[in-house]
Amino acid sequence: MKKQNSPQYYHDYLKLDSILDSQYLLSKELGVEAHDEMLFIIIHQVYELWFKQILYELDSVITAFDKGTVNESHIGIAISRLDRIIEIQKILIDQIHVLETMTPMDFLDFRDLLNPASGFQSVQFRVLENKLGLDKSSRFTYGSRNYKSHVRKDHRENIQKAEESPSLFNLLEKWLERTPFLEFKDFKFWEQYRSAVDEMLANDKGLIEKNERLSEDEKQIQLKEYAGTEKKFDALFDQDKHNALIEKKEHRLSYKATQAALLILLYRDQPILHNPYKLINRLVDVDELLTTWRYRHALMVSRMIGRKIGTGGSTGSEYLKKTAERHRVFEDLANLTTFLIPRSALPKLPDHIVRNLGFYYDSRGNK
Amino acid sequence: MKKQNSPQYYHDYLKLDSILDSQYLLSKELGVEAHDEMLFIIIHQVYELWFKQILYELDSVITAFDKGTVNESHIGIAISRLDRIIEIQKILIDQIHVLETMTPMDFLDFRDLLNPASGFQSVQFRVLENKLGLDKSSRFTYGSRNYKSHVRKDHRENIQKAEESPSLFNLLEKWLERTPFLEFKDFKFWEQYRSAVDEMLANDKGLIEKNERLSEDEKQIQLKEYAGTEKKFDALFDQDKHNALIEKKEHRLSYKATQAALLILLYRDQPILHNPYKLINRLVDVDELLTTWRYRHALMVSRMIGRKIGTGGSTGSEYLKKTAERHRVFEDLANLTTFLIPRSALPKLPDHIVRNLGFYYDSRGNK
Amino acid sequence: MKKQNSPQYYHDYLKLDSILDSQYLLSKELGVEAHDEMLFIIIHQVYELWFKQILYELDSVITAFDKGTVNESHIGIAISRLDRIIEIQKILIDQIHVLETMTPMDFLDFRDLLNPASGFQSVQFRVLENKLGLDKSSRFTYGSRNYKSHVRKDHRENIQKAEESPSLFNLLEKWLERTPFLEFKDFKFWEQYRSAVDEMLANDKGLIEKNERLSEDEKQIQLKEYAGTEKKFDALFDQDKHNALIEKKEHRLSYKATQAALLILLYRDQPILHNPYKLINRLVDVDELLTTWRYRHALMVSRMIGRKIGTGGSTGSEYLKKTAERHRVFEDLANLTTFLIPRSALPKLPDHIVRNLGFYYDSRGNK
Amino acid sequence: MKKQNSPQYYHDYLKLDSILDSQYLLSKELGVEAHDEMLFIIIHQVYELWFKQILYELDSVITAFDKGTVNESHIGIAISRLDRIIEIQKILIDQIHVLETMTPMDFLDFRDLLNPASGFQSVQFRVLENKLGLDKSSRFTYGSRNYKSHVRKDHRENIQKAEESPSLFNLLEKWLERTPFLEFKDFKFWEQYRSAVDEMLANDKGLIEKNERLSEDEKQIQLKEYAGTEKKFDALFDQDKHNALIEKKEHRLSYKATQAALLILLYRDQPILHNPYKLINRLVDVDELLTTWRYRHALMVSRMIGRKIGTGGSTGSEYLKKTAERHRVFEDLANLTTFLIPRSALPKLPDHIVRNLGFYYDSRGNK
Repeated sequence: MKKQNSPQYYHDYLKLDSILDSQYLLSKELGVEAHDEMLFIIIHQVYELWFKQILYELDSVITAFDKGTVNESHIGIAISRLDRIIEIQKILIDQIHVLETMTPMDFLDFRDLLNPASGFQSVQFRVLENKLGLDKSSRFTYGSRNYKSHVRKDHRENIQKAEESPSLFNLLEKWLERTPFLEFKDFKFWEQYRSAVDEMLANDKGLIEKNERLSEDEKQIQLKEYAGTEKKFDALFDQDKHNALIEKKEHRLSYKATQAALLILLYRDQPILHNPYKLINRLVDVDELLTTWRYRHALMVSRMIGRKIGTGGSTGSEYLKKTAERHRVFEDLANLTTFLIPRSALPKLPDHIVRNLGFYYDSRGNK
Repeated sequence: MKKQNSPQYYHDYLKLDSILDSQYLLSKELGVEAHDEMLFIIIHQVYELWFKQILYELDSVITAFDKGTVNESHIGIAISRLDRIIEIQKILIDQIHVLETMTPMDFLDFRDLLNPASGFQSVQFRVLENKLGLDKSSRFTYGSRNYKSHVRKDHRENIQKAEESPSLFNLLEKWLERTPFLEFKDFKFWEQYRSAVDEMLANDKGLIEKNERLSEDEKQIQLKEYAGTEKKFDALFDQDKHNALIEKKEHRLSYKATQAALLILLYRDQPILHNPYKLINRLVDVDELLTTWRYRHALMVSRMIGRKIGTGGSTGSEYLKKTAERHRVFEDLANLTTFLIPRSALPKLPDHIVRNLGFYYDSRGNK
Repeated sequence: MKKQNSPQYYHDYLKLDSILDSQYLLSKELGVEAHDEMLFIIIHQVYELWFKQILYELDSVITAFDKGTVNESHIGIAISRLDRIIEIQKILIDQIHVLETMTPMDFLDFRDLLNPASGFQSVQFRVLENKLGLDKSSRFTYGSRNYKSHVRKDHRENIQKAEESPSLFNLLEKWLERTPFLEFKDFKFWEQYRSAVDEMLANDKGLIEKNERLSEDEKQIQLKEYAGTEKKFDALFDQDKHNALIEKKEHRLSYKATQAALLILLYRDQPILHNPYKLINRLVDVDELLTTWRYRHALMVSRMIGRKIGTGGSTGSEYLKKTAERHRVFEDLANLTTFLIPRSALPKLPDHIVRNLGFYYDSRGNK
Repeated sequence: MKKQNSPQYYHDYLKLDSILDSQYLLSKELGVEAHDEMLFIIIHQVYELWFKQILYELDSVITAFDKGTVNESHIGIAISRLDRIIEIQKILIDQIHVLETMTPMDFLDFRDLLNPASGFQSVQFRVLENKLGLDKSSRFTYGSRNYKSHVRKDHRENIQKAEESPSLFNLLEKWLERTPFLEFKDFKFWEQYRSAVDEMLANDKGLIEKNERLSEDEKQIQLKEYAGTEKKFDALFDQDKHNALIEKKEHRLSYKATQAALLILLYRDQPILHNPYKLINRLVDVDELLTTWRYRHALMVSRMIGRKIGTGGSTGSEYLKKTAERHRVFEDLANLTTFLIPRSALPKLPDHIVRNLGFYYDSRGNK
């Protein structure tokens, strides 16, 4: 890298002429300036700048995983980048408090002018959903119209491209499927895990049946729930059942990837699985924060416009609330906790495997 | 107030012997200390301390409103107290991040020991819901069992008592009904507001019908939505329809209180309505933050235990998610924004009324 | 306001072409892209957008106060606008967490390229300081060079203009001086307040002298402190002494404005003083949050570059830490708490004054 | 672990009888209840509960490091525990907003009653400072009196014990000194690092000398700064000079530990150094957040009581502000960034070392 370059000036380096001269108040142009339109514009610009940053980080994670070999260093970097995305997401959520300083009456002063512009049309947000791996068929649709139809042609193409390129979900799934630890050499993990699970399930069932505080009615409900849990475990141990759940859209992550992710969760105390565990955890964080943002955003919109239709012609807050749950991408990873068993019940790893999974070195740095 | 008292010592004043000696780890007692049980205990103790503070503030607001006369000063104090509750609620939400540093595997180390103890059994939280004014019939029930049946007798009585005493919702409703401004002397507000509304609705309908970006399908959906909005306005102008909605549990706030609240929202720029407006706004804040807390809490529980049954025998996260929406108390106030009309369309108040609604004084302090 | 305008498109309305195409990585241009330069650019752009919003709100407050008559409605609006500034400031502080995801080594990858650009050159931030009312002579200077010399000519003029125009501090001071309640008709507040103060001071002195837990050494230190407090009260009751403190830059707010502000603080329970009290409180909030931001920023810079010189040639973190305290504008308002006396000792207002200071109306809205 | 235990009840498990019955309002006892005293008590109890949790986590980290061998797994756990402390610290800072809903006048209603109780007397906070490793001689003292003299005998002993037991600072220092990578086998890191440093320093000096925007005056100041930086590097390469700085209390971390920490920072991209790097980073986080808390706390106190003496007889806010800086423990780690050099200038590690520092395995899990 050559170091010599011309002296930099803060204002020009940051292109502040463009950034700070991009706020045009429609209300002003049409005659009566609505004071709060400035906030409305600026906060949305800030949101879009953060979306750009999130996409930039997400792209770098996707690039790292879109390779035959993903090494320890790639995972470390991916975690750092997701950490950054997470910090940004927290800001996105907190910023809603700023927008809420605008009262509904103040919004009414210019709301009609924006028609039919709407957050629906945020290209970057759609691209973000697609790059994370939101399944096309899971999208909550509004009427029969495709979600891409709200934006203009060139933007539609960008969204389409992101829909077709490998998503983080896909790449993660492939990486998990490649995990070399699924068969721990001579260690029959799967068998031992299964017998530990059987014991635990029997115990759980007993807790319900013997719970004297429950009415007969409640007992039935809980036993039904329990049956659901048991069914999930059945699918974990039976690839055909698992695939049937995928078919029915009740599950998405492949059989092998599910096993690998579960192993990572169960044995995350092993140094070599520390970072894979963190990676999975961060993805659940990102998902949860996006869900929280959607939900908080929906509450805010509901407060701002009540039950009226949104600026883009959507029923605003209801649409947003529905997407909060439905647009989750890594829910399967979060739900893996369903399959955890206590450390005390966890099959012990043989010493030679433990040794292979950690850093061991003497005081001269020799392994 | 006599000022002389014995010298105080920080530790004793705060009863730290009791506070700091109330953490008994069941796991330790039963042989294997689970490190994270300490956090589990302490964070719940902190939650309960904050609940006590919230109830203390809420009681003072209720006391102020449980009187024939509520004066300006009472409202000012109520706003301050609600402001404090709001700041505490933000902490309650943020604290979830602390609990999330406990991983599901760490929780499993002691989770079974707690059975069937559960947040379900928090007496203060139930009392809080009742004092805010959660309608008994709106409670999301689990099986056929009453929500009070999870706690022991003396606690059940506390909850029952809070159920029967006047709630903030009831008192607010009565106070709104007493608002003296519903008839602005000779000013025919209601008629003028209605004609302004009619004009606005016609305009909104036109926007949908002329929107060329909508498919026929979408147009029908939106017109259906619009019809819903129109119906809501119809109920606003027709006491019988309003009461029918109340009957059907689609609305809760009385006809007269709804009108008063709407007037406050529309004319909140008038100094005398400034504080009533803030009061309404704070109540919506409290509601929204409680909803957000429930939702975040549900996400956290889902992550911690997956889709398994909760410690109290509930389906944990699903129950919590459902209560997030259903247990809102002041939703009618939030939804009043549905009925707002732009300031530009708002009937002007005659000067003599404006003068009566503000502070006007000359430079010697005379009015 | 005419309502008909052309249909809006989200992307164009927000000028996203300009906003999202203003990130040029110097490191990329010079051959080796430093991944984190994108974050560095975007977060600073976001900061500048928020500064623009803060200035926009601040200008509206200044305009409202830059008039002969400031009515209740102006104050209410000013409070709302300051509330918004406060929410934005909280975001500015929290955003530091995002920047801290960049490690010092990552910053080093492109840091030298930026030379000598620096946050020093943020025109908007300087304008903000000036509009709030930072006293020119209080600025912490670096070497003998004027703070405006770091920016180019047209920018220097903007800063200069803000330096010369009436600041919020000046306007607030004038508004306080005009407060009509300084003489409460026949009520001799000042005399009664003074005698209450005398009693309290004697009590405080006694507490130190009789405190057996203090060593002789400590007692002397505290008595010296006490003497300082007494001196401050002396100045409160003696205009000449007050002016001498102003001369020595130990105080800034004029004698009359200080009295008015103190009255507002002491009698803020009176409805008519509720908003003036809030206004003062918000200004202290703004000051405190700006101070906190500077301090947190300084800690972050110190962590990022250690004790090396900053990009603008400043000793970075040390400079920032020093400005945190020195660049406070409304410290005199915060320090007014020094002069508070307990409510129990507060001279009672006669009924006819209380009545004049509140809203009183019968059930028909008559006063 | 035997699983069967008696059924648990939320209220009893959390000892809520003790927790929720430990709020005695002195003002109430003495005749006039001051509403805000409840908040004052509860928030301090919450602070103490969090301090207990922080100490619990800190103890576990200290125990892990107070051993001859610290393995990868210990470091991983230490990082998790510090992560939790960090999340708690964020809450401690945010909670100040709750306390700030109490106005100075409201505090005055009961402030005198507390005399001489004060946060000064928080035993847990003193123990925390000592366990982190605050150097006795660095404590900012108030008068000639020892900081322990404010608490009663048994508490004094607890603080004393924490002063004498090995602190996290001491243990970290020893662990760093044991780092096996200080000599990278045949790789002459130190020499190459030194020559890279020399080149960088020469470059920095040139930047100042050639900077035409600087006045002669400023240039002298910056060159003086530069000389300071150079001196710091001199000490890095000369053990005697380093020790002299330690003698003069300008530095604290030992020569060998400083080198190890620096190596970790420079080569943190290597998988084996990933966690050691994070550990160092978390310690700086803890330090920074504690500093921020002290500073925010000081601002709050200053606002609450102005420039009067604190409840414990201290000059409150001034004392707190001074400790913010002086009571930092891991400042040497934060300042290590002073010695970083760009990755591009960093001596390359030979392949056989890189290989030894990472996880490499084929698709069957073999290394």
